Amino acid sequence: MIYLDNAATTYPKPEEVYQAMIESMKEFGANPGRSGHRLALKAGRAIYETRELLSKLFNIENPMNIIFTSNATEGLNLGIKGILKSGDHVITTSMEHNSVLRPLKALESIGVETTIIQCDKTGMINIDDIEKNIKQNTKMIITTHASNVTGTLFPIDEISKIAHENGLLYMVDAAQTAGVYDIDVKSMNIDILAFPGHKSLLGPQGTGGVYIRDGIDVVEMKEGGTGSKSESLIQPEMLPDKFESGTPNTPGIVGLGAGVKFILKTGIENIRKHEEELTEHFIRELKKIDKVKIYGPCDVSKQAPVVSINLGEEDSSEVSYILDKVFNIAVRPGLHCAPLAHKTIGTFEQGVVRFSIGYFNTHEDIENAVKAVREIAKEI
Amino acid sequence: MIYLDNAATTYPKPEEVYQAMIESMKEFGANPGRSGHRLALKAGRAIYETRELLSKLFNIENPMNIIFTSNATEGLNLGIKGILKSGDHVITTSMEHNSVLRPLKALESIGVETTIIQCDKTGMINIDDIEKNIKQNTKMIITTHASNVTGTLFPIDEISKIAHENGLLYMVDAAQTAGVYDIDVKSMNIDILAFPGHKSLLGPQGTGGVYIRDGIDVVEMKEGGTGSKSESLIQPEMLPDKFESGTPNTPGIVGLGAGVKFILKTGIENIRKHEEELTEHFIRELKKIDKVKIYGPCDVSKQAPVVSINLGEEDSSEVSYILDKVFNIAVRPGLHCAPLAHKTIGTFEQGVVRFSIGYFNTHEDIENAVKAVREIAKEI
Repeated sequence: MIYLDNAATTYPKPEEVYQAMIESMKEFGANPGRSGHRLALKAGRAIYETRELLSKLFNIENPMNIIFTSNATEGLNLGIKGILKSGDHVITTSMEHNSVLRPLKALESIGVETTIIQCDKTGMINIDDIEKNIKQNTKMIITTHASNVTGTLFPIDEISKIAHENGLLYMVDAAQTAGVYDIDVKSMNIDILAFPGHKSLLGPQGTGGVYIRDGIDVVEMKEGGTGSKSESLIQPEMLPDKFESGTPNTPGIVGLGAGVKFILKTGIENIRKHEEELTEHFIRELKKIDKVKIYGPCDVSKQAPVVSINLGEEDSSEVSYILDKVFNIAVRPGLHCAPLAHKTIGTFEQGVVRFSIGYFNTHEDIENAVKAVREIAKEI
Repeated sequence: MIYLDNAATTYPKPEEVYQAMIESMKEFGANPGRSGHRLALKAGRAIYETRELLSKLFNIENPMNIIFTSNATEGLNLGIKGILKSGDHVITTSMEHNSVLRPLKALESIGVETTIIQCDKTGMINIDDIEKNIKQNTKMIITTHASNVTGTLFPIDEISKIAHENGLLYMVDAAQTAGVYDIDVKSMNIDILAFPGHKSLLGPQGTGGVYIRDGIDVVEMKEGGTGSKSESLIQPEMLPDKFESGTPNTPGIVGLGAGVKFILKTGIENIRKHEEELTEHFIRELKKIDKVKIYGPCDVSKQAPVVSINLGEEDSSEVSYILDKVFNIAVRPGLHCAPLAHKTIGTFEQGVVRFSIGYFNTHEDIENAVKAVREIAKEI
């Protein structure tokens, strides 16, 4: 199987990730932060180590500002529903995933107002449109760092500048970029950063997190046992306990730590370079094939390693089915949980065939994908 | 290390659990329910298999009524915060964990009223007290199935009867019983059942779930991508998608499935019998030691395999520290995230030393624990 569905989840993971998870379960499978015995303490330290590694990667000063969640979606929900209140206005974009758009839609019922900035056909945002839409009651801007449909990279530096010049919070969905692109919450002045653990951070499914800058008033989504201030019926205010109730996903978080360690050891710039080279080559070769329509910027300097295409008017699910059955290539068709992005690029009916490249893909994988697309294009 | 902290999380897990997790990550580490390729379908089927196994264990008719969560706490929060609205009254008990009490406390601010039934010194509830406290606006009764402090088993059959005779919902926290005690949501008429995956169900940390009977109006906690109805910005109503947004914890859920398979293969009655025997023996031997005060029913027919003690007036943390450092025995001291339970049994200041027994504990473990307690008792 040639796996080109890394935007959904990366596969495989580095061998160290599997090993770290098994080791954590077999060697210190206790409940971290609950009891005081050595196994529980060891589990607690292992979780803290992952916080430190992520802090290093994202230049976060205090590891306690990282909240572990079960996926990026939970982090986005926490940031969105924990911050926005009745009467607030929020600005987002037409390239967002349903993990941003659906919580915002749900908040309409309590009187939160959303402006969705329309991006262009390649998924690019005109940042002047953000500035134009700021109102008296605007509280936050939320954008993706890169579209999961077209890969289009967003100018998060510039958007952050607009946000802070106008006294707004800026929340970034790094689902497609964390682990491949430089993210520095300090220099980029990001207030809330949501990230999955199981995509380019190379950890297992079931992990993710959200960084929340100090000084932002966020209501927790869940209350429960935190192993701290157990005498009180009131959820503690201290971080990360306020937002992390119940037993954490120790093996998952330890695996995520191993993934981040792999990234830091390999060098994020080397990972990016490899993925960019494959993406560039893939786009170049696809352009030579008749009937292939490529969406997005078609320029690796402007996009994450996601390449979405269609073959003439062929249904994207049909093409993906053939890629799987005949060519043993895994991609993702359809709408990718991002309906407005597909409306933006004009593929709401047809969907697209999305190829997404990961660090463990090889030049040969790309060659095989090109060959497969060429053959399918011939047949239709 | 003699591990007697199984009420926090069971350790070790059956070998099959580790193997299933690694296999899921190495063999089909794709995103279930998102793409249509064979790896994604395989992952989706594996998750469904766990739903089926849990349905068998709890006699749940439709596996889709099981919602996977990251722990029992999330399931409890979903049931509590998704159902109770301003003006509602809820009845619970003084033996509940903070995962029930803290969400209820938080709901006070929106006008949800809670009555906490005071249990007796052994943690037993007088069910007449429940009936007496039902009011016009009472919507739900929430109780644990067994206390995490004293092990005290609650008469959930009888409480369920009271609930339904009065047109109320009944929600059960099965954190200490799922996987050891018989739970049949049909015959016991349980409306909402929250359970951790990583305790007696023998799955990994990071897993849990909640069964929600059809026909109950529950608001979701999170919205996001569900891999279904992607064209819509509105969270789908179908189960389990309504409550399961974002990438699931595939390796965790697969591991949980392996844990449940182990239970079904071994026989839940054999597991219970083993744990009861050890608990009975432990209580019997502890009773012979001067200075040992045992809390709870002291009767295996009335309690889960949790035995909480104190040695004279000695601080529970100090005793636990010695058990760890000198005798290599892992227990949990303090308040166990259940402050009202400790007030109920009179140990709010001292805490208790909690020994909790799991299926993989042996007679020898218990003998060693008895010896250790005897020696510490001599010294103080």
